[in-house]
Amino acid sequence: MNNPIDSNAGPRLYRIPDGDDRERLTCPDCGYVAYENPRIVVGVVARASDERILLCRRAIPPRIGYWTLPAGYMELNETAEHGAMREAWEEARAQLELTGLLAIYSLARIHQVQLIYRAILTQDEVSAGPESQEVKLFHYDELPWDELAFPTVDWALKHDHQAHLSGYTKAFSNPTEDEA
Amino acid sequence: MNNPIDSNAGPRLYRIPDGDDRERLTCPDCGYVAYENPRIVVGVVARASDERILLCRRAIPPRIGYWTLPAGYMELNETAEHGAMREAWEEARAQLELTGLLAIYSLARIHQVQLIYRAILTQDEVSAGPESQEVKLFHYDELPWDELAFPTVDWALKHDHQAHLSGYTKAFSNPTEDEA
Ligand SMILES: [Zn+2]
Ligand SMILES: [Zn+2]
Repeated sequence: MNNPIDSNAGPRLYRIPDGDDRERLTCPDCGYVAYENPRIVVGVVARASDERILLCRRAIPPRIGYWTLPAGYMELNETAEHGAMREAWEEARAQLELTGLLAIYSLARIHQVQLIYRAILTQDEVSAGPESQEVKLFHYDELPWDELAFPTVDWALKHDHQAHLSGYTKAFSNPTEDEA
Repeated sequence: MNNPIDSNAGPRLYRIPDGDDRERLTCPDCGYVAYENPRIVVGVVARASDERILLCRRAIPPRIGYWTLPAGYMELNETAEHGAMREAWEEARAQLELTGLLAIYSLARIHQVQLIYRAILTQDEVSAGPESQEVKLFHYDELPWDELAFPTVDWALKHDHQAHLSGYTKAFSNPTEDEA
């Protein structure tokens, strides 16, 4: 993924544009102002017919070899729901039906908002896409807690478990304020 | 708001970068690739103690003079919830407590995802901020339906009404798929 701040070209200096009230990333070469906004990650906690949960072992940095949920940056020209389904297909060749929004996680420090949906697999066959080394279905008590790629994977798995036990349908948010 | 495609500087040509699978907006002057992602709008349907709903009459384009909910682009370094509260303060000097997520609207054509929260005003005094001509509290059956600024304001008011009547807490999404 692209990080303009590390770049030698394009927007890389902070200045306050005319008529604005805060510093924005601008390009000293051509004057372009890059209005930075949080990026949306869409992802899914998908369960098979026997309630096992789909995880993917990452084939790409960061956190190669660790387990994650199918998730990625939402593209233009798709809904959040379609983005979540697209990621599940790209990373795990999974076909699924979304059953509702599980959680919104705001990760202010890394400029992300994650929209995590719940889903059921419409067929239990899954296989690794190009960004996954392996995909696997886990019972909740067999999940690889010590080998999860990101804290939000841990949050989402626990929130999904709570939702699963309680029939709960309200969206969760960050477990604690200061983890934003 | 900034629209790079209309600009004579910065990223303005579509090319497929090395290692990518689709066209991205690139700058022909310096080679910078602008990964475009949907932008997050955070907003709020806030009710006073007598259940009246807070609207703002827009003082800025687009749709000057029309009524809208307090809403705006989420900034970096804030959570979605804080963004919604910030917008309510900036546009209506409203102090409120969020009571849950009302809806996620994906507006693919305009590259927005709107996260709309429900709220109650913690004090009933509100007043116009710099982007509002006027702010006002409306009973549901007195809402200015013909003078709403955007379709999503209409959606959110109706979804909030449904939620209010039913005690419903599950997040809504676009009313129909093809309005994305
Ligand atoms: Zn430039
Ligand atoms: Zn450039």
